[in-house]
Amino acid sequence: MTKLMTPDELEAALRRIGAERYHNLHPFHRKLHGGGCTIDQVRAWALNRYCYQAIIPQKDAALMARCEDRELRREWLHRITDHDGLDGNEGGIERWLVLTDGLGFDRDYVVGRTGALPATRFATEAYLHWVTEKSLLEAVASSLTELFAPKLHEERISGMLEHYDFIDERVVAYFRKRLDQAPRDAAFALDYVRRNARTIEQQQASLRALTFKTEVLWAQLDALWLAYVEDMPAPGAWRPGEGMREVDAAA
Amino acid sequence: MTKLMTPDELEAALRRIGAERYHNLHPFHRKLHGGGCTIDQVRAWALNRYCYQAIIPQKDAALMARCEDRELRREWLHRITDHDGLDGNEGGIERWLVLTDGLGFDRDYVVGRTGALPATRFATEAYLHWVTEKSLLEAVASSLTELFAPKLHEERISGMLEHYDFIDERVVAYFRKRLDQAPRDAAFALDYVRRNARTIEQQQASLRALTFKTEVLWAQLDALWLAYVEDMPAPGAWRPGEGMREVDAAA
Repeated sequence: MTKLMTPDELEAALRRIGAERYHNLHPFHRKLHGGGCTIDQVRAWALNRYCYQAIIPQKDAALMARCEDRELRREWLHRITDHDGLDGNEGGIERWLVLTDGLGFDRDYVVGRTGALPATRFATEAYLHWVTEKSLLEAVASSLTELFAPKLHEERISGMLEHYDFIDERVVAYFRKRLDQAPRDAAFALDYVRRNARTIEQQQASLRALTFKTEVLWAQLDALWLAYVEDMPAPGAWRPGEGMREVDAAA
Repeated sequence: MTKLMTPDELEAALRRIGAERYHNLHPFHRKLHGGGCTIDQVRAWALNRYCYQAIIPQKDAALMARCEDRELRREWLHRITDHDGLDGNEGGIERWLVLTDGLGFDRDYVVGRTGALPATRFATEAYLHWVTEKSLLEAVASSLTELFAPKLHEERISGMLEHYDFIDERVVAYFRKRLDQAPRDAAFALDYVRRNARTIEQQQASLRALTFKTEVLWAQLDALWLAYVEDMPAPGAWRPGEGMREVDAAA
C-alpha cells in the first residue's frame, strides 16, 4: 500500500532510484572511463551525446513556457544560459563542441545530428516532450538526475585523462564546469520537489519522473553499446571516418 | 543537386528506402522467422511490439485531428477501426492480445506497458509526435512502410507456424488480417504522396518521413536485440517469468 511520505522519506526514495538506475551503472560508462573504448567508440559517444546536450535548453525553455511563477522562472533561467552561453560565457554546448572538435569531427556534422543513432534522437526528444506535457512538478523532478552527476563527472574526468592520449584538459572543460553547476541546480530542484510533492499522487509522479529520466539516459548508452560495441549500427548511422574534418580524416 | 522528380521517380525513391532500411532486414527478424528465438525472446518481441500496436490508432487520430479535408478523414477513419475494432470486428489490438495470451502473458501486464523497454516507448511515441507535429503530407508518407509489410507478414506467418510449437493459426490471426488491410492502405497513401508531393521540398520531406518511420521500426528491434539476445535488459524491463498468467507461470 503506497502511503504519504515525509520530505525526508521522499528524498530517500528519489536517491534510491539513482542508486539503482542512474547510468553510471551502465557497462558503457565502465568501458569509457576505464580506458576500454577505442577512439571511434569515444567519438560515437560524443557525437550521440551532443543530441542530449542540444535538447537541454529546449526542455528548460519548455518548462519555463508553462510556469506561471515568476520566481521559479527567474531561478530556472540560468540553466538555459549555462548551456547556450551569454556574453562572456561560451556555454555548455560550445564546450561540448570543443570536445567533438578535439575528436576530429566537423562541427556542422555534429550539429546537424544526421549521423546520430535514431534511438538517441527518440530518447532525447522523449525528454523534451515529457517536460512539455507533464505537470511542472514532474518536469522539475525529471531534472533530479543532476543529484548523481558530480560523482560520474569526477570519475569521467580522471578516467578519461588517464586512459586516452587524445583527451586533454581543454576537451574535458564541459565536465569540470558541470561539477560546479549541477550541485546548485540539483539542490534547488530537490528542495522544490520536497516542498511541492505533498500528496501521494504527487510523490509517486515525482518518483516516476526521475525514473523516466534515468531511462532516457540509459537508453542512449544501450543504443551506443549495440551500435558501436556489438557493431550493429542502424542504417544511416555514423560509421568511423564519416563527418570528420578533412585534416583529421587524412591523418 | 536535388531536383524535382516525376511521380514515378518519387515512387521509385520511396521504394528504395524500403529496400535499404525496412526492418525485414534486421537480424532479429531473421532469427524470429527462422526459428532461432527462444519462447522468451518471442514473448519479449510480442510484449514490446504491443506498444507499437497500441499507438497506431492514436497516431491516426492525430493525423485526422489536423486534417481539414473531409474526404481524407473519411478515407483514413477505417485505419482506426481496423485497430480498435467496431461492432462485430474485434480489431487488430485485440488480435495482438490473442497473440500475447497465447504466449502466456497477463493482459493487464501487456496493456500497462510497464515491462516494455524504455527504448520501445521512446520510438513509438516519437512516431505519434511526428504525426502530430509535421505536415499532413509527411504524416501520410510516414505510413508508407505498409508498402513493404505484406511480404514480411507472409514470411512471418509461415516461418513462425513452421518453427514454433507454441504458435498456431489463432495467434497469427493479426498478420493474416494485415495481408488484406495493408495493401489497400498503402496504395491509397502512395497515391496521395504521388499527387501531393509536387515541390522539391515536399518530395524530400516525404522521403525523410518514410526514412524516419523505418528508423522507428528498426530501433524497436535494436532494443530487443540488446536486451534479450545480448541479455542486457534496461533496469525495470521485463524479465522471463514476469507478467505471466498464474496458470502459465506454474507450468
